[in-house]
Amino acid sequence: MARDTVAYDRDVVADVLAKVHAEGRESLTAPEGRRVCEAYGIPTPGEGFATSADAAVQLAAEIGGEVVMKIVSPDILHKTEAGGVKVGVSGDDAVRAAYYEILANAAAYKDDAEIDGVQVQEMLSGGQEVIIGATTDPTFGKVIVFGLGGVLVEVLKDVTFRLAPVDHETAMSMLDGIKAAEILRGVRGAEPVDADALADVIERLSDLVTDFPQISEFDLNPVFARPDGASAADVRIVLSAKEPVEPVRYSRDEILATMNRMMRPKAVAVIGASAESGKIGNSVMKNLIDGGYAGEIYPINPKADEILGRTAYKNIGEVPGDVDVAVFAVPAKFVPQALREVGEKNVPAAVLIPSGFAETGNHELQEEIVAIARDTGVRLLGPNIYGYYYTPQNLCATFCTPYDVKGGVALTSQSGGIGMAILGFSRSTKMGVSAIVGLGNKSDLDEDDLLTYFGQDPDTNIVAMHLEDLKDGRAFVEAAREITRKKPVVVLKAGRTALGARAASSHTGALAGDDKVYDDILKQSGVVRAYSLGDMLEYARGIPVLPTPKGENVVIITGAGGSGVLLSDAVVENELSLMEIPPDLDAAFKAFIPPFGASGNPIDITGGEPPSTYEATIRLGLEDDRIHSLILGYWHTIVTPPMVFAELTARVVAEAKAKGIEKPVVASLAGDVEVEEASDYLYQHGVVAYPYTTEKPVAVLGAKYRWARSAGFL
Amino acid sequence: MARDTVAYDRDVVADVLAKVHAEGRESLTAPEGRRVCEAYGIPTPGEGFATSADAAVQLAAEIGGEVVMKIVSPDILHKTEAGGVKVGVSGDDAVRAAYYEILANAAAYKDDAEIDGVQVQEMLSGGQEVIIGATTDPTFGKVIVFGLGGVLVEVLKDVTFRLAPVDHETAMSMLDGIKAAEILRGVRGAEPVDADALADVIERLSDLVTDFPQISEFDLNPVFARPDGASAADVRIVLSAKEPVEPVRYSRDEILATMNRMMRPKAVAVIGASAESGKIGNSVMKNLIDGGYAGEIYPINPKADEILGRTAYKNIGEVPGDVDVAVFAVPAKFVPQALREVGEKNVPAAVLIPSGFAETGNHELQEEIVAIARDTGVRLLGPNIYGYYYTPQNLCATFCTPYDVKGGVALTSQSGGIGMAILGFSRSTKMGVSAIVGLGNKSDLDEDDLLTYFGQDPDTNIVAMHLEDLKDGRAFVEAAREITRKKPVVVLKAGRTALGARAASSHTGALAGDDKVYDDILKQSGVVRAYSLGDMLEYARGIPVLPTPKGENVVIITGAGGSGVLLSDAVVENELSLMEIPPDLDAAFKAFIPPFGASGNPIDITGGEPPSTYEATIRLGLEDDRIHSLILGYWHTIVTPPMVFAELTARVVAEAKAKGIEKPVVASLAGDVEVEEASDYLYQHGVVAYPYTTEKPVAVLGAKYRWARSAGFL
Repeated sequence: MARDTVAYDRDVVADVLAKVHAEGRESLTAPEGRRVCEAYGIPTPGEGFATSADAAVQLAAEIGGEVVMKIVSPDILHKTEAGGVKVGVSGDDAVRAAYYEILANAAAYKDDAEIDGVQVQEMLSGGQEVIIGATTDPTFGKVIVFGLGGVLVEVLKDVTFRLAPVDHETAMSMLDGIKAAEILRGVRGAEPVDADALADVIERLSDLVTDFPQISEFDLNPVFARPDGASAADVRIVLSAKEPVEPVRYSRDEILATMNRMMRPKAVAVIGASAESGKIGNSVMKNLIDGGYAGEIYPINPKADEILGRTAYKNIGEVPGDVDVAVFAVPAKFVPQALREVGEKNVPAAVLIPSGFAETGNHELQEEIVAIARDTGVRLLGPNIYGYYYTPQNLCATFCTPYDVKGGVALTSQSGGIGMAILGFSRSTKMGVSAIVGLGNKSDLDEDDLLTYFGQDPDTNIVAMHLEDLKDGRAFVEAAREITRKKPVVVLKAGRTALGARAASSHTGALAGDDKVYDDILKQSGVVRAYSLGDMLEYARGIPVLPTPKGENVVIITGAGGSGVLLSDAVVENELSLMEIPPDLDAAFKAFIPPFGASGNPIDITGGEPPSTYEATIRLGLEDDRIHSLILGYWHTIVTPPMVFAELTARVVAEAKAKGIEKPVVASLAGDVEVEEASDYLYQHGVVAYPYTTEKPVAVLGAKYRWARSAGFL
Repeated sequence: MARDTVAYDRDVVADVLAKVHAEGRESLTAPEGRRVCEAYGIPTPGEGFATSADAAVQLAAEIGGEVVMKIVSPDILHKTEAGGVKVGVSGDDAVRAAYYEILANAAAYKDDAEIDGVQVQEMLSGGQEVIIGATTDPTFGKVIVFGLGGVLVEVLKDVTFRLAPVDHETAMSMLDGIKAAEILRGVRGAEPVDADALADVIERLSDLVTDFPQISEFDLNPVFARPDGASAADVRIVLSAKEPVEPVRYSRDEILATMNRMMRPKAVAVIGASAESGKIGNSVMKNLIDGGYAGEIYPINPKADEILGRTAYKNIGEVPGDVDVAVFAVPAKFVPQALREVGEKNVPAAVLIPSGFAETGNHELQEEIVAIARDTGVRLLGPNIYGYYYTPQNLCATFCTPYDVKGGVALTSQSGGIGMAILGFSRSTKMGVSAIVGLGNKSDLDEDDLLTYFGQDPDTNIVAMHLEDLKDGRAFVEAAREITRKKPVVVLKAGRTALGARAASSHTGALAGDDKVYDDILKQSGVVRAYSLGDMLEYARGIPVLPTPKGENVVIITGAGGSGVLLSDAVVENELSLMEIPPDLDAAFKAFIPPFGASGNPIDITGGEPPSTYEATIRLGLEDDRIHSLILGYWHTIVTPPMVFAELTARVVAEAKAKGIEKPVVASLAGDVEVEEASDYLYQHGVVAYPYTTEKPVAVLGAKYRWARSAGFL
């Protein structure tokens, strides 16, 4: 934390909260909230508290100018709704009248409300109303909120979230993080608000809720942001009724010790291995053997002596050597006993394929196996999963079909169906994969364990995850921040709409957080978010194909002017920057294209050009240092057929690479069906290329840039 | 127009505008603007005009309460920026001080500004600030704007547009058309604003700019919208410097007379036909012959007697019979002379493949051929196009390869590259096409002519258009409104981002309008907008496959819970409604699925189920009247392999159809590569199905719904 917390008066806050707690209340009154704010240096307007009309009149006179008057009642949280707020009151008679009206309104709103009195406050105005708050997210814990305040926050929901605690830089980033950020910078000649003062309030609030985690909600709304400071006009503080449950956490070394043995095992046991075709225990055995796994495979089956040519054991205790991972293919009811035996054998990891646990409502059985695992020191993957693939070890510990195209992409899915889509897409596009892992019910091992492993795995260079919830958002963020500095992480968060979230809830029993919280915090942790299954798969496939860009200057070279326009649209949508071409470079491009071609950016080489024009302009685009990425728009003509374009592009890219020049190159191919083969060829040669779409190649480039920026390469 | 325009005082407005015009000004002063508003019954606050501090003090006293004071100067349009506005002024001294300060600020802002005086106005407050305005769009002409007012309109740009004139219903729809619409309905217990009063102001303004087209811009900003009325606090009126150019328009009968002969010709002439392979004039001849066109084909070539077995003519005048369309395959410079001859021969349509006109900067040549065409009564398609396909006539009048998969989809593109992508995608997906038409420079025939033709074409049941601009937005809207009641129209508007629009401008020389204007007005005309090339192509392919839904109740039936969550996300994003399943229907579904499957919606039948479970639940979904559309989520398992799922689904859908039950059914297939074949099979059997994506099938369903709603089926 950047802030010097020594100046905070923690005792005052502790006293206030203790009193509220002692009185069995969950929310603070306005004067209590004000004391808390003052103790942490959060500026509030001049004010006082009146229990009679005379006192209110006197207070208003002391404050001077116009005042705001507000009901003070532990029973009324929404004061405006209750008619308990009067603004711009001035003059003795008006103050007196307002006092009585507020009391009358409050009584009408809730006749048994306990009324403490009326707060009389300096009328703040002339600034921009913003909201600064903190909330306790079920996934991420303490989260800081910033946005436009007043009524607009509820209607426009133009707010941004960050994980608490926030430092000064993060606080400042929140001011830029809302859609209406421009309003804070001053529009129509208005002075900009005091950004440092706002960031200061954000940091103080962040420190406050970090120091006092029992504060579950904290709203400063509105805060008046002025050119010369900021004051919180209203404060609302709610305490949590129950203690938060601390999730179980393992150290990095503990995680890696288990994960290394699970992913690179010397010996695998299959609990419930079977010789009978069609059984899951048979499919797992077959896939391990057919997949080419070179370690020991121990089938465990009380009724067999041998399965698929391997000696079978009655139980895992009888296995002669060490076992690194036990893959379970027995019905749910047999899992607890077998898991105890696995624990006794000191197997570090159990992969639980069976369903019939929390996902079918059988929470007791899931809790039972989790307890056994904790007792015996076994980490669990699943239950309710298809298993996992790890191609560096030729390991297909799954009942699905084997997969053998090796590469650097590690994929995980919470759902089995999505896992199957990952497998099919990978096979269809020949995507090089290091791992495909099912997480299912996530009773124990989850995304942060996998990130910790993949982060240090030399065989993995990108991770793509489908998830519906996070059991421990903070652990995920910590792991993600670490890995995303080196390797991209793509996340498809399902259940991101209200209806989607409802379905997630019925599916996994997990409470999905508000999507905007996920969105902002995933970004904060360096994750590239995909908003659809198709995008997740294409990003996973395409990001590792592209080199990391060295700058923001993107140039479009296109044979089809029409593609150029659509590619430009896609550039803007993906938050990329079309380079302003300097005059000398413009002249250099012009030398290659017809006089009526459009130079500038897009560079429209026009449709009837021969291969040499594509080649010369692409080479120039690669060789000029000021250009950092290329987007190609190909137009199928007789003069330059699709495969000719593909081969020349691949060759020019390879020649540049031989000279040490590596830039992301993506391509959109418009033409007859031959462009499909040409796109495949280009993809295999390091150019992310698609037929019949201008948006997909640019979306992949945009995803690469999002990662490169968050990882500090740009 | 709903409004009784008799009450309007047109003479007052005409006098004010005449005076402004006579003085060589383009903008009205505030008092002039106020007179114009009053003449059309647009409510404005109490006010007066002061040319001295004393007069201002007297006026303020007469108005009473707080006043707003504003500079009046023909040279200062942005009064706030100039420091020319003081709000909440009350009391003689304050009014006097404000008067002098405003004059001083104005002089400092622009020292040569002519200052008329200061407007003293009743201070409006307590309402919501909105903007109501009119602007003259280069594409659509008079357009009405509504949005949140004040500073927010500039930052949030939360505005909505409609083509003027607007009726009461359209005016009311504008209030719901902004993101912050909720604020007008009253939030946090606030009273709703007077929607009728706001709509009334919108209509009056619409009438005003319709009656006086020389008004190019009209801002009422802010309008204070209160629970009991609305008043325009500030008015800004700008007149256009030049007369608008009225576009050339043809009647429906004239358009159809030409288009019918062009699309269903008895005889086609090819100007510049060639026997030499590789020449465009040779490709066109070959494609006409190889495509199977049964009418007469007349090659025109001064140097040949016969081309590809057809008698050639020196010029079109020598052709013995009538010619319905002349396809040009000669260099640009030869077009004028040949076009004159085509005109003399009374050929109604010329298809101009050649480039070298406006797109290369040769505007003169394009103007020349347009003039010749007008003179001789020939309508032009192009120039700078690939030609056109019309499959009902086996007509491939293009230099690209023939296409013969007949069907109801008509596609058009402004760009040749996009046309080639259309062709390739069509061939790859075996999309049944009626027409593919290149529009290129749109020197004459454009989208509205084609819409008029396709609207009445029995061989076309959906139109998909790629466009970068519209030459005549009003004609397009008129044609679109007519056709979209019967047939869906999908539009991909390129150049929709600022950068994209810049590229469009360099490509076609066309000024693309602001995208939000396009967005709102395309919606107003019943068009389904696609936001990417991929979406346009998938909508074109999928919409005609699906029957028109009879209601909004969408049900998801899924084998993969994970797909169910993502499909639910997609439902929300595509503005579809997941049906609330009534208890009896819930019980009926439950009877088919395992006890731990999730009923509700999505209906999660769980992953391990046999074909009979898919079959029973899909049949129930089709046969229950309360359900209007089905989204299927398939999960590849050994128990129900992909083709088994595809065949059973196709069979159940066909059985329902035989009973007269037709509902849209779309499917997402998660699994290994066999799901690709299964998806193709389903698509061919009327189920819009995709592998590895949950978003695409729902997007197509959403597009179908958007059309069905706008056409009044829902």
